[in-house]
Amino acid sequence: MSLVVQKYGGSSLADADSIKRVARRIVDTRKAGNQVCVVVSAMGDTTDDLLELADAVSPAPPSRELDMLLTAGERMSMALVSMAIANLGDSARSFTGSQAGVITDDVHGKARIIDVTPGRIEEALGDGHIVIVAGFQGVSQGSNEITTLGRGGSDTTAVALAAALKADVCEIYTDVDGIFTADPRIVPTARKIDRITNEEMQEMAASGAKVLMLRCVEYARRFGLPIHVRSSFSHREGTWVVDPSSAPESEGASVEDPIIAGVAHDRSEAKITVVGVADSPGKAAQIFQAIAAQQINIDMIVQNVSALATGQTDVSFTLPKTDGQRAVQVLQAAREHIGFESLQYDDQVGKLSLVGSGMRSHPGVSATLFQALADNGINIEMISTSEIRVSVVTRDDQLDDAVRAVHTAFGLDDADGGAVVYGGSGR
Amino acid sequence: MSLVVQKYGGSSLADADSIKRVARRIVDTRKAGNQVCVVVSAMGDTTDDLLELADAVSPAPPSRELDMLLTAGERMSMALVSMAIANLGDSARSFTGSQAGVITDDVHGKARIIDVTPGRIEEALGDGHIVIVAGFQGVSQGSNEITTLGRGGSDTTAVALAAALKADVCEIYTDVDGIFTADPRIVPTARKIDRITNEEMQEMAASGAKVLMLRCVEYARRFGLPIHVRSSFSHREGTWVVDPSSAPESEGASVEDPIIAGVAHDRSEAKITVVGVADSPGKAAQIFQAIAAQQINIDMIVQNVSALATGQTDVSFTLPKTDGQRAVQVLQAAREHIGFESLQYDDQVGKLSLVGSGMRSHPGVSATLFQALADNGINIEMISTSEIRVSVVTRDDQLDDAVRAVHTAFGLDDADGGAVVYGGSGR
Repeated sequence: MSLVVQKYGGSSLADADSIKRVARRIVDTRKAGNQVCVVVSAMGDTTDDLLELADAVSPAPPSRELDMLLTAGERMSMALVSMAIANLGDSARSFTGSQAGVITDDVHGKARIIDVTPGRIEEALGDGHIVIVAGFQGVSQGSNEITTLGRGGSDTTAVALAAALKADVCEIYTDVDGIFTADPRIVPTARKIDRITNEEMQEMAASGAKVLMLRCVEYARRFGLPIHVRSSFSHREGTWVVDPSSAPESEGASVEDPIIAGVAHDRSEAKITVVGVADSPGKAAQIFQAIAAQQINIDMIVQNVSALATGQTDVSFTLPKTDGQRAVQVLQAAREHIGFESLQYDDQVGKLSLVGSGMRSHPGVSATLFQALADNGINIEMISTSEIRVSVVTRDDQLDDAVRAVHTAFGLDDADGGAVVYGGSGR
Repeated sequence: MSLVVQKYGGSSLADADSIKRVARRIVDTRKAGNQVCVVVSAMGDTTDDLLELADAVSPAPPSRELDMLLTAGERMSMALVSMAIANLGDSARSFTGSQAGVITDDVHGKARIIDVTPGRIEEALGDGHIVIVAGFQGVSQGSNEITTLGRGGSDTTAVALAAALKADVCEIYTDVDGIFTADPRIVPTARKIDRITNEEMQEMAASGAKVLMLRCVEYARRFGLPIHVRSSFSHREGTWVVDPSSAPESEGASVEDPIIAGVAHDRSEAKITVVGVADSPGKAAQIFQAIAAQQINIDMIVQNVSALATGQTDVSFTLPKTDGQRAVQVLQAAREHIGFESLQYDDQVGKLSLVGSGMRSHPGVSATLFQALADNGINIEMISTSEIRVSVVTRDDQLDDAVRAVHTAFGLDDADGGAVVYGGSGR
């Protein structure tokens, strides 16, 4: 008997009918001879509705109380899914994050999972029940406070529980058919990826691919846990995210693996350029220490070649738009200390990333990428590379064209036309 | 420094503005130099909305999961009230029933409180926080399952917490000004009662007075805890429900105490008459054993004088309308065994109860009551009495007239006209 952990997101639990459909699928998985542990998000717009209520009583609610409020969302959906399963004649028991043994640190709103002690889950599974767990939430070590895990938290809950339960697979159900070679809304000929390594998936997620959150992929990679991303609206196979070293079939298949897994894009970042910094040791450290002191994460950094005549240089970096204004204020305040001419803030940029473990052994990838962009008249503003990724920053309004051009240049377009692939995944 | 426990019902927490108003009142109580522990119900229609969702996924949801679902309601309101208090610059911490140490038996949907271990509450109060507790919910002893307390559960939570914390008073905030001598919607001249003994209040609640639930009054009486029932929409004094033996002012005031505290009415019951039962020992026992086996509570019982010619008698009793059809089925099934001619089921009845500890020493109360009804052409179908209560069953459509007639006959009408008293209590 296999142990399957499934996770259903809010779009799969939008209303009573959706919940009944999900319950049917869960019961079918159980009837196929599996033990089933299910992680659920809050229904549809519940979290947004709760945030709106919070905003109506307080513009800056205490994070402890916001976590108390938001955790009501998954509590409702887990109870309703359990009821729907009971209505199909099977037996389900729901557990909050705390009851499920999801132990976190005490950072309300974006807690990290420290440990999972799923004693009650194992007992309920052993007694023959289907188990439904509230995603996105846990209880803090020591202080026993209710916490939430932040964005993508339910996926992380599912992967963490699957690892703790030594599950055979973690199935992430969503409203698309799987991971695509590019966002099908931008590239209609994008293909669903059947199999991607967790290393590649990690780069895709870090580069803006939205289907799986980075934390969840990191967690699964650490525990060597296979993830199956698939649609809750069809029964088609989705995308398997696997550990290349542990998956036996990858040994033989590696030769055939495509060079490129996919093209990710990201519009969530802004670019700051610090103009006229003295080209002397320690200046970059001063800039980024000031930013880091505000807990702001930096993505790409580029320093231009020094203009020798002036002894000055420009330093550019990207960061989340949501932190942009704060970073500008911090740098303005430190202007005397650091010594620079001016700041340029630009939130009209986009980032394209090409990801593929095959590029390790194919040196021409960057050249092909740059040529494809040049052929389409797209200017590159910043470049950054890792061993299995090349990222470029372009104008925001050229990003879609850039993604399509690169997708075509690397032979990723679906010969049959993408509409068929993506047609069934809409809601 | 006094310790005040306050309870706010759903009608006082209908929306964000109501929550802010309640937060203001809580902060004012704290600023007046009190420690404050607040019990909240779910906002406005939340519980009904959740029940509707449950019904949409399952016609008969498991009670464990229903409790999981419903407890989300108070979780939301307690977090929102805490946020609103923080927004006023004070510090509040919310706790679920489980965190507050409300230990119950394991009867989902109508659990009884076994114990209260408010360690976390005391710690938070000691640290200077205002404490907000989710009403209506607890955690079962031994199995650690989330339970709900059933109707009036938040009042019971408040009284139980107040008793465990040794609070000076338990304030129950509602949408009316207090307890009235009769329901002001039926008797416009009803007066607000300033002070009522917990013994009288217990009879009033048992007789259909809706402002306080019976269980909560019983609990407060057991612990000698004073309750102050008042409006969350005004600052007027409400009704004090007190222990006559422990309240020093009652010693002198008892002589002046009115004979009658008030007139309660109840439309929630139905009447069953078992016609043509053999007038022999053990028949009543057979009837009520059959009913009791179904966990159905009986209220009044009347057995007519035997018609000597036939050796048969009729037995009538009242019971909650919601249990009526089930009781009829049980009796029909036992007809052979018990031996009776027919059953009459009547849900067009109403019950009027006159309550007052003063009637112990005033023998003419029943006679005055019956005369008042007779003068208004109202037929009495059943009579039942306790030491401090007289109850009669009438036709449903004569009940309002009966309540008004009795209210007047015992001099309870407000000389100034009740509109002023009750006028400010609407929402």
